[in-house]
Amino acid sequence: MSRSPLALRPLKLKTQVNRYAEGSCLIEMGNTQVLCLASVEEEVPKWKKDLGEGWVTAEYAMLPRATHTRSARESVKGKVSGRTQEISRLIGRALRAVVDFKKLGPRTVTLDCEVLQADGGTRCASVNGAMIALALACRRLQREKKIAAWPLTGTVAALSVGYVGGRLCVDLCYEQDSAADVDMNVVMTGDGRFVELQGTAEHQPFSLAQSQRMIGAAAQGIEKITRIQRQALAKLLPKTGRAR
Amino acid sequence: MSRSPLALRPLKLKTQVNRYAEGSCLIEMGNTQVLCLASVEEEVPKWKKDLGEGWVTAEYAMLPRATHTRSARESVKGKVSGRTQEISRLIGRALRAVVDFKKLGPRTVTLDCEVLQADGGTRCASVNGAMIALALACRRLQREKKIAAWPLTGTVAALSVGYVGGRLCVDLCYEQDSAADVDMNVVMTGDGRFVELQGTAEHQPFSLAQSQRMIGAAAQGIEKITRIQRQALAKLLPKTGRAR
Amino acid sequence: MSRSPLALRPLKLKTQVNRYAEGSCLIEMGNTQVLCLASVEEEVPKWKKDLGEGWVTAEYAMLPRATHTRSARESVKGKVSGRTQEISRLIGRALRAVVDFKKLGPRTVTLDCEVLQADGGTRCASVNGAMIALALACRRLQREKKIAAWPLTGTVAALSVGYVGGRLCVDLCYEQDSAADVDMNVVMTGDGRFVELQGTAEHQPFSLAQSQRMIGAAAQGIEKITRIQRQALAKLLPKTGRAR
Amino acid sequence: MSRSPLALRPLKLKTQVNRYAEGSCLIEMGNTQVLCLASVEEEVPKWKKDLGEGWVTAEYAMLPRATHTRSARESVKGKVSGRTQEISRLIGRALRAVVDFKKLGPRTVTLDCEVLQADGGTRCASVNGAMIALALACRRLQREKKIAAWPLTGTVAALSVGYVGGRLCVDLCYEQDSAADVDMNVVMTGDGRFVELQGTAEHQPFSLAQSQRMIGAAAQGIEKITRIQRQALAKLLPKTGRAR
Amino acid sequence: MSRSPLALRPLKLKTQVNRYAEGSCLIEMGNTQVLCLASVEEEVPKWKKDLGEGWVTAEYAMLPRATHTRSARESVKGKVSGRTQEISRLIGRALRAVVDFKKLGPRTVTLDCEVLQADGGTRCASVNGAMIALALACRRLQREKKIAAWPLTGTVAALSVGYVGGRLCVDLCYEQDSAADVDMNVVMTGDGRFVELQGTAEHQPFSLAQSQRMIGAAAQGIEKITRIQRQALAKLLPKTGRAR
Amino acid sequence: MSRSPLALRPLKLKTQVNRYAEGSCLIEMGNTQVLCLASVEEEVPKWKKDLGEGWVTAEYAMLPRATHTRSARESVKGKVSGRTQEISRLIGRALRAVVDFKKLGPRTVTLDCEVLQADGGTRCASVNGAMIALALACRRLQREKKIAAWPLTGTVAALSVGYVGGRLCVDLCYEQDSAADVDMNVVMTGDGRFVELQGTAEHQPFSLAQSQRMIGAAAQGIEKITRIQRQALAKLLPKTGRAR
Repeated sequence: MSRSPLALRPLKLKTQVNRYAEGSCLIEMGNTQVLCLASVEEEVPKWKKDLGEGWVTAEYAMLPRATHTRSARESVKGKVSGRTQEISRLIGRALRAVVDFKKLGPRTVTLDCEVLQADGGTRCASVNGAMIALALACRRLQREKKIAAWPLTGTVAALSVGYVGGRLCVDLCYEQDSAADVDMNVVMTGDGRFVELQGTAEHQPFSLAQSQRMIGAAAQGIEKITRIQRQALAKLLPKTGRAR
Repeated sequence: MSRSPLALRPLKLKTQVNRYAEGSCLIEMGNTQVLCLASVEEEVPKWKKDLGEGWVTAEYAMLPRATHTRSARESVKGKVSGRTQEISRLIGRALRAVVDFKKLGPRTVTLDCEVLQADGGTRCASVNGAMIALALACRRLQREKKIAAWPLTGTVAALSVGYVGGRLCVDLCYEQDSAADVDMNVVMTGDGRFVELQGTAEHQPFSLAQSQRMIGAAAQGIEKITRIQRQALAKLLPKTGRAR
Repeated sequence: MSRSPLALRPLKLKTQVNRYAEGSCLIEMGNTQVLCLASVEEEVPKWKKDLGEGWVTAEYAMLPRATHTRSARESVKGKVSGRTQEISRLIGRALRAVVDFKKLGPRTVTLDCEVLQADGGTRCASVNGAMIALALACRRLQREKKIAAWPLTGTVAALSVGYVGGRLCVDLCYEQDSAADVDMNVVMTGDGRFVELQGTAEHQPFSLAQSQRMIGAAAQGIEKITRIQRQALAKLLPKTGRAR
Repeated sequence: MSRSPLALRPLKLKTQVNRYAEGSCLIEMGNTQVLCLASVEEEVPKWKKDLGEGWVTAEYAMLPRATHTRSARESVKGKVSGRTQEISRLIGRALRAVVDFKKLGPRTVTLDCEVLQADGGTRCASVNGAMIALALACRRLQREKKIAAWPLTGTVAALSVGYVGGRLCVDLCYEQDSAADVDMNVVMTGDGRFVELQGTAEHQPFSLAQSQRMIGAAAQGIEKITRIQRQALAKLLPKTGRAR
Repeated sequence: MSRSPLALRPLKLKTQVNRYAEGSCLIEMGNTQVLCLASVEEEVPKWKKDLGEGWVTAEYAMLPRATHTRSARESVKGKVSGRTQEISRLIGRALRAVVDFKKLGPRTVTLDCEVLQADGGTRCASVNGAMIALALACRRLQREKKIAAWPLTGTVAALSVGYVGGRLCVDLCYEQDSAADVDMNVVMTGDGRFVELQGTAEHQPFSLAQSQRMIGAAAQGIEKITRIQRQALAKLLPKTGRAR
Repeated sequence: MSRSPLALRPLKLKTQVNRYAEGSCLIEMGNTQVLCLASVEEEVPKWKKDLGEGWVTAEYAMLPRATHTRSARESVKGKVSGRTQEISRLIGRALRAVVDFKKLGPRTVTLDCEVLQADGGTRCASVNGAMIALALACRRLQREKKIAAWPLTGTVAALSVGYVGGRLCVDLCYEQDSAADVDMNVVMTGDGRFVELQGTAEHQPFSLAQSQRMIGAAAQGIEKITRIQRQALAKLLPKTGRAR
């Protein structure tokens, strides 16, 4: 692949790809493909009862043959792996950073992120696509007059970044990810603040300088993703719901 | 919808839709969409060991938001429902009817049928699409010289049929299926023999005459599906592997 | 075994075999033995609430040593196999075909079908025996004045049929079942209509003519079973609750 | 019920009640009925490998409708209750007390104790019936020349005993058991030694004198059960395998 | 170890070892260490609802590395072993023998017994330590004026006893326990009555005389444990809540 | 609490607290207490077979009553929560950053981190204590001549840091953690490089400047923890195994 190490892989967002979901988006980042479906349910978790507030949660899952070799299906194994739960929790936290639960009202939006094809960066692609699905679901609530005020305070986007063979790279594909010394996943709001910062030394601990350079590269890449998200939403959310 | 009760819904087969699977097919029958991925693994179940033979199996699964309202994820519930298992077993049996396990050699082909959108007839669509994915996986084995002789003895196809409001219909969508008095799923080989015949009186027991008319209508519809399958495979499997 | 291929195995019904169950029947079809126990509970599934209607469901289970070699206990494995669930669902559907849920009133009858000894045809024996247990439970409800009108619209019976070594056979024992090319389970009402028709090509797809001959043979056998069921019930249900 | 508090309920042993099990016994103690099936498998647990020794284990289970009201099936709940496991372990320990594992050779005998009807004392009935099933399985091994020497060193039998309304009773039925202040289950060998002694104060702690009286009454009752077991086995095990 | 076979191992009770639990006690019996934590929750099991009564229950668990070699964690295996459940039930029963549920009021006390280090006798140590934790939790309820009258009718204590190499021993350590012919666990109230008596012949059935000697030795040892418990409680429960 | 926001809570390390574990350490950071036990097993995961290399893994667990209110036991619920798995994975990754698997040889060290009392920062305390337990286990391997060269390349330590009420704080207790706007967990090697950096905006996204200040404060605190770890190890690991 001839892309420069600091260039994103081609990013495509295809919206309204499911007849039933209140919001939907198929995102592609290079060969990674994630189907993000937002479901609105008119109920909230127990601990939210009587607060008049809503909730946003996510479930990430990989199809058994999303990857080079087939993995056993988690439903058949009878349990969800630690990795799957960890990513589901991350996506949920990321999206909740831009939701005003009071304005959302007493309902839950669940973002199902189904990885159809996995070539690295599936959790970041999930965040990026789920953001769109969530916004579309909110638009639908607005159109159906179920909500009075736009419940999103902005957008979030995520990008992986790392050092591969001593070189700083963004949007790592599977091959790069496997070879990376350090791997950092960064989630930021559209206005440039951090929501999650998760750096892990896979082989070599990293220095403060390296961490700063990774964070910087991630911020630049996320700016580009935010732009693409805004374009996609601009068409769909003409007046209200402008991403800030 | 103005289609005649004995007409199929629009049926589309899109092949090679996954980078990694040895064979893949996205099938659409009306609004029902199933992603069928064939995975080849160079091992066989225990009870097939030392026979030099292969095996073909299937796993059916519905995305949580494939339907009008979101269902809980089976991996999260920690178990596979009876319905899911029943359909997985049906798909596996259907495909095995056209496999020569000796010629397939000591390997397993797993057909993952992922229902992306469900509007009735998902088990039949799974059989129809998985048939294509299986054939493509076999072609790949052939090209890679892993098999000497074409391991499929033909094709299989499936169709639902039933009485809705006293009227015989084929390829029932969800709305028709819910209202049907009788519902029959038929699986046949491309040369017109039966592999599975599963009729269930949902509300009213049915007569011998009705059962014969349903079987007849299913046979006609399956002939059309077989034709579409053969066209799709003809392009892909130029000389060998001709579906009979 | 010298019985003619279209003759049933000896069929015995022993009723009231359990002190506690509202209805009970030990059925033997050849060496297959199933203990069928009907339990009445004064509650209904959630989705039946507020309809004033009842529900009928079934649970099939095989004792670990019902068969030639011992199988692991499903409770110990921590999950119910696909086969077990599939059969439980079939039995429930079969019985529901002759129940008037309005007349049954807001209660659930659960039919536990415990296979004590398995020599083929356990699902059919379960349907046949559970029918009797269900009728006895209804009689008890009637005697206790819990129901006003007889809630059964007739009887159901089931029979397996298949081609073994090219020859049409009914009521297959384990050995025949293992060798069968095709295996069909048929459930019919006492008045000759179909409730379930489940044919599966185990080794060879079957023709339309074969399917018709199997259905015909099953219908004849089921007529005999219905007669035996009626005799058993006639003694027990003198006036009301006559099976039609 | 007019039996005297220190009299056993009628005890019946019906042997060879299952076509497939290597040994089988249906035991009735009053209204309690347990089907005991012995299965021989030519393998041993991991920790017995390479010792040339055998193993004996038990699995106790109650049919969902063995009792006054239906209980949820443990396989459906996905786990075995603490009570079930505790009793399974007790039965296994009881039987192992009379097995010479060297003589049994490298095989496992599993005793499945299926409670068909439960009116108190199911664990004791299980021990008593499983003893017979085990002996029959050993006889079969002997006849098939799989073992050289008789592997049982004697018999075991079990009885419940307790104080109900201040009165010492043996072989408690469900109603007595529910009302008992103290409940003791005693397992003894045929030659009068103790294998298990499990006394539990359900409502009132008990005195040393009471414990001694309970143990005495249990010993007397067990003597009678041993006699019945020996008679049953005498017919079946003419020369060898005499219970001591 | 030079202690006499009828001497207890050093027994230490350290109370108030946890900041959050309503009552807590770290008990050491020789090298066995169990952390016993009492939690009060203002709710009762379903079947206690509307009775105005409380409930006491226990959960026993062993840390994976409490023993010589590490065991798999039960949460990771996804199920609680039979042994764990059996012991949890025993501890609960033992404690309930000295609780007046009316006086406790509609609340549940859960005794978590966490085995930090296991050198034999963990279930007895759990009972002994949980007794203290329970009493401390009651004292707290009293101080907070949640209960009007002292809800404990006395104390319970437990001790293991057995024959090792033909010699009667009490408070068996792991090495003795493994070698014991008979192993008996005895639970008694502080006033010398029996709550549980669980004797098991590990290798050799035991005689009536042996059982009596074991019970006698256990009673003597339990008297000493009761004394130590009372001393510990005397300091903490100056006036009310005196153990009888 | 009067400590300055950038001061650590009192940190205590008590080593060799378990008789059986190859290495053990009870760590206290304020009121948080974690028992860290290292178990050495002479086997490696499947995917490490034939590499001659070792592995290090961790399991984190919280006692049900480690917290203000009792939580259900994960073994009883039958599954490990996402949070528990996420933390277990983090601890394992942290420790592996300083292990030379070649030098460790074909064995696995499992670090069980049992949270006895939880007042915030349990994952960091687990890393800090497990580091000591791991080093002690390595020392034991060295003494037993099972390893030739010291397998640790240094030490790791972890600290939580965050903004509470707009103020930068380190080593957050539960109360601070609940109120924090941002929460970052940092794991560093003893020589000042990063292993993990996990920042999460709980309520408010954070700026680049804030992230840098948090990382700086964490680095300073970790330096102090490293010093305490080195002192503890210095006594125990006189010559070899010096933490760098």
